[in-house]
Order: sequence, then structure tokens, then C-alpha cells
Amino acid sequence: MPIITFTSDFGDRDWFVAAVKGQILKVNPKATVIDVTHNIVPHDVRSAAFVVHSTHADFPPATVHLVVVDPGVGSTRKPIIVQSENYLFVGPDNGVFSYVLTDTSRVFAINITGEVSATFHARDIFAPTAGILSRGDEPPTLGTLISDYIRFSFPDVTTRGKAVHGEIIYIDHFGNLITNIPTATAIASVRIAKQHIAVKECYAEGRHGELIVVKGSTGFYEIAANMASAKSVLHASTGMHIVAAVA
Amino acid sequence: MPIITFTSDFGDRDWFVAAVKGQILKVNPKATVIDVTHNIVPHDVRSAAFVVHSTHADFPPATVHLVVVDPGVGSTRKPIIVQSENYLFVGPDNGVFSYVLTDTSRVFAINITGEVSATFHARDIFAPTAGILSRGDEPPTLGTLISDYIRFSFPDVTTRGKAVHGEIIYIDHFGNLITNIPTATAIASVRIAKQHIAVKECYAEGRHGELIVVKGSTGFYEIAANMASAKSVLHASTGMHIVAAVA
Amino acid sequence: MPIITFTSDFGDRDWFVAAVKGQILKVNPKATVIDVTHNIVPHDVRSAAFVVHSTHADFPPATVHLVVVDPGVGSTRKPIIVQSENYLFVGPDNGVFSYVLTDTSRVFAINITGEVSATFHARDIFAPTAGILSRGDEPPTLGTLISDYIRFSFPDVTTRGKAVHGEIIYIDHFGNLITNIPTATAIASVRIAKQHIAVKECYAEGRHGELIVVKGSTGFYEIAANMASAKSVLHASTGMHIVAAVA
Repeated sequence: MPIITFTSDFGDRDWFVAAVKGQILKVNPKATVIDVTHNIVPHDVRSAAFVVHSTHADFPPATVHLVVVDPGVGSTRKPIIVQSENYLFVGPDNGVFSYVLTDTSRVFAINITGEVSATFHARDIFAPTAGILSRGDEPPTLGTLISDYIRFSFPDVTTRGKAVHGEIIYIDHFGNLITNIPTATAIASVRIAKQHIAVKECYAEGRHGELIVVKGSTGFYEIAANMASAKSVLHASTGMHIVAAVA
Repeated sequence: MPIITFTSDFGDRDWFVAAVKGQILKVNPKATVIDVTHNIVPHDVRSAAFVVHSTHADFPPATVHLVVVDPGVGSTRKPIIVQSENYLFVGPDNGVFSYVLTDTSRVFAINITGEVSATFHARDIFAPTAGILSRGDEPPTLGTLISDYIRFSFPDVTTRGKAVHGEIIYIDHFGNLITNIPTATAIASVRIAKQHIAVKECYAEGRHGELIVVKGSTGFYEIAANMASAKSVLHASTGMHIVAAVA
Repeated sequence: MPIITFTSDFGDRDWFVAAVKGQILKVNPKATVIDVTHNIVPHDVRSAAFVVHSTHADFPPATVHLVVVDPGVGSTRKPIIVQSENYLFVGPDNGVFSYVLTDTSRVFAINITGEVSATFHARDIFAPTAGILSRGDEPPTLGTLISDYIRFSFPDVTTRGKAVHGEIIYIDHFGNLITNIPTATAIASVRIAKQHIAVKECYAEGRHGELIVVKGSTGFYEIAANMASAKSVLHASTGMHIVAAVA
């Protein structure tokens, strides 16, 4: 069955997500739409980019990833299709695909046909596009190859001697703080907000409420608090500076 | 594949939504159930009516729309099926289908068979009914035609000279204020809470945080704030009076 | 179509739920995954056990129930499969299946193959296991029969003369307080926090905001407030003591 994932900042109070799914099903009744999340903080393109990066490869090849965090809806920003080795991505050209684009990806500006609203391109442009792609139609039939798309950089880590400087790039539902330091780097501890936190194997190795660092499931170190929220304990937010000590 | 949409005020913390889906799948294993929202404010029948109105036509013909916002569960209020030109609707007879009923719609009171709880008709009555309808069974095999169903009016706009008087009828997740003034009416600005707000083409035409009026995707004007919440800026709530100036 | 339900404390802000679904679909592209809830209070194993108990039988036989509330992820706690008469259950061995285990259930410790993270067994172990079981594979091909699994007791009611002593075991989205007193016991009223509350047939029998007791849909009495939240009115929490008067 053709699979379409759907990530947005639409929330879960209104009919917006359902409207998109209905329009997909009108185009491809066989599509299965899997929600990633609709609770991206409104207009937070960088978090959406990280979410897409973190989960797109959990899905079978040929999955279409629909991502709509789109503060520029109705303006001149382009609706685009990204064609990578294993997946297709559909959404606005605002950098939301920055972390999944590779040098071999091809980007297409979607040719707009028919009438569209000024405020709901997810329903009027992106949903039909995702539906058609999920039927197996090729991107060139839907858009025009472009090279001037928007792509921002993943936050870099810098190493100075034994110190690896990084930052908090995402905070999850449990209050775990995801850093940009790859788990391939051997580190012994992390310093944040004047606290030194040791690396452990798993959450349960910490005492109740103890701050620990663990290897996260997306390939980056995470700061956690066993059975508690590291975000609350540290009053943390994304962008906070951290320093890890090389092991 | 037969499609059933599901709208409720059941929230997303308990098992209620899943229980309904399980009972649907027992009756029709081929049904695809699409959530509209389960975060209607508890017992807010008018908001549910607007949500159903706004998205039902996004789905393919023959879709069954299951809507359960039902403060009268277990009382004498009737469970009903509404058969309109393209769709079937299932839910309580409390006005929730007021905005999708047309003069050619037929309304059936569901014949109750088997044992039902006093508190969970969504699971015990509405889910099996929706499942059976999604298999193609006709409403008269499940219920009895009635004419004394509940239907309330859509809030009217009134025009006096150059002034169109209306109100806020729904506030979405982004804090956009949806009015009852149709986008077919040419207006230049809206006055609300002593502020005059100009009509723009899209959200991004406003400065950061600026209040604007745009043509909404459901056919009504919306008051929005670019990259911000108009609800917060204006301390708005549904029912608030607005006056638009005819263009 | 093979059905898998999914209950967790993963919340709805991140990609965790989608990652699990993607990995299921990699193993069994025909599986339909139905969310029960992902808003179990983080690490609240007892609430998860009650949710699974309350809704597992709403689904067709052979449904696989995946339940991941797992504070011990990465520790020595076992990942398990529970095979009961009509259903299969997959999750951590921490008591989460206590209320659905029967004397004829068989429990298997999952044989771990391949590489797994220390923090996301739902994706790395439980999802593939659920996917394989949903294809019809038998539990013994995936795990080893064990008898030393964790099982805690359902909170008991005790009867002294005309008084049935019980407690609040779950509070739902509407603020209804679910007790552990079975609806098969005939009672006339419930005392909680010095208030006496009468048993009624349905919510609508109470006046606006009035506290009432009704027979709940899962087979236990519930304390409710018509059109309001009994939780707020009574400042209630789970574990609160109640005394019912036998009718």
C-alpha cells in the first residue's frame, strides 16, 4: 500500500489535518496516511526539519513525506517536491527539508493548476501532489526542476582540545534534551548551565530525578532525567550551549 | 476502500476513540477511519457543527461522517443518520448536523438493537451503525424516517448601508478568528474591539504580529495576526461582534 | 486486514509514534495500526494497564495490542509477548498487562536479534515483533516461554456490612472519576470527600454541574458532574478512598 507521512503545525483541534487526508484520498483512495506529528510549534521550521530528519528513514522506500510548516503560505515562496534516493518529500520551500537533502537530491517547483486558496495550500496544492506521487507518478510530470531552493545548515559542533562545543537542538515530550553531538564521538560527560552530567547506558541507570547523558535513538547524545524532565530541572531551551568532555 | 471520518469531544488521553474504531472494524474490517478531531471543547455542539460543515466535502462521495458530541447520551435524545446527496452522517440528534443538512436530506432515527450502555453510545450504537453504512447498507434498514429532528440556524450577517454586521464563529489552533462573513462579499476592512483591520491577500503580507483580514479556506473572512495569535492579541472569543466595511 | 493497536506515553509532539508505525509497516505493509492513546502520563504503568484492560476486547480476535510505557527501557527488564485466548500483547515486562493476563495466558520473553538502541525499544524491538505477529507468526518463533513475569493486582473492594470500600482508579478526559466498584454491585450512593452522591441512570439526569454516580461503560461505577468535571469539583486524584452504600 502506498504510504504518505504527514508532519505539520496544524495542531489537533481543527479539521485541517482531515481536510488534507480527504483530498489525498480523493486522488489516491489506496493511500495510507501516517501522522508524524501536527504539534510542531507554529511556524517552527527548524524543529520540523529535525523531526523529518529523525524519522523519514523508518518508513519503507517510496514513502512520500508531506511536511507543511508554512508561515509563507500564499506568498511567493514555492511549493516543492524533493526527490532523494529512497523517498519523496512535498512541502514549502522554506528550508524544512534542509536536513534530508543530499547532493543527489533533485528539487522541483510544483506547477500550480486549478484554483487555490491563499491560506490552505496543504489542502489545495500539497495534498493532491502527495496523492499523485503516491500513485507512482514521477515528479517531472508535476513540477519544474530548480536549483535555487532554500537549505540551511545543521548546527555544527566544534572541538577545541578535549572540549566539544555544541547546543540543544530539540526538546522532546519527556523533557529530554537532544544535542547536536553525534553518538559516534566518545564523550565522558556534558556541562550545561554549570552542571556536570555523566554519560550512562540507559535512563534506568540514573537515580530517580538524576540528570544523565545517554546515547539517543537518532544518533545524538541526549540529556535526560530518570523518571523526570531534564527540561524542567535545567530550565532548558533549544539553542542552549553545552560542552562535552572527550572520553 | 470505505471511509469513515470521526469527530468528537473525547480528547486524546483515554481509550474512547479506539473503542469506537475497534467496534467499527468488527463490523467492517475494510473500513478506513480518518480522525477529524477529538478535541472539540466538551459538549460544544455548535463548534462541532462548524467543523463538520468545514471539512465533510473534502472527502470522496459515500464517506460516512461519524460525529459524537453528545451531552445528552443515555437520555431521550435520538441517535440519527442523515442522508444527504453525497454523504452519510451518524450521531446524536442535537443539532450537530445543522450546517450540513439541506432540504433534500433525509433523517433517520436509528433503531436500537441489543444492549447499550448509558454513557457510551459512540461505542454501542454509533460505531456499529457507521460500520454497517460503510459496507453499503441503506439507512432505511437501520432506522426510521423522521421529520422532527433538531436543526439550528447558522449565525446571520446583517447589512446596513456600508456596514456588514457579523460575529466570530470559530477560533482555530493558530488563534485565527473565523467570521460568518462570506468571502463572496467584497469588504475593505473589519472593526473588532475598537480596532480597524485591513483586508490582505495572505498572512505573509502582514508585518510580524500585525492584525490582518484574509479570505479563509472555508469561504469566510478570518482575522489573523502574521506569525502570532489574533485570539491573544484581541482577547477574542466566539460570539464577538464585528463590523465589516463594504469595499 | 491485520490490526495492531498502539498505546504509549510518547505524547503527540515528536516522531516516536511514527517511527514505530514505520518499522511495523516495513515488516508488514498490510498492517493497520490504530492508536489507543499516546498520552498516558509518562511512566504511569498502572494507568496504561487500565487502558489496555478497558479497550482490548473492542477489537476483532487476533488483534495485536502493542503497549509501551517503559521506564525501564535499556535495563534488564524483559521485552515480552503475552498470548491470551483472543489476543496478542507486546510490551515491556513491568506489569502493564496485569489486568488482561489470565491463568491460561502464556508469556514469552522476546529473543533480541540485531542491534538495538538503549532508549527506543518500541522502535527497535517491539515494533518489529508486533509486525511479525500481525503476519500470523507464532509467539514461540519470536520468544522463550517464561513464568517469572511481573503481574500486580487490581485494587480490591472490601465490603463491611452495608458499606463497600473502594477507590478512584482512573480519571478520564471529561473529569469523570472511574472507581473499582463493579456495576454488578447494586449501590444507592457513594461518599467521597465528605459528599454523598446519588446513583443516576445517565449524565443528563443530573442538574447542570451536579455530582452524580453512573454505571460506566467499562463495568465500573463512575462519579461524574453533568456538563462539568467531577475531578475539578472534588479536587480528585487516583487512589482517593470512596465508600458506597449497598442498595
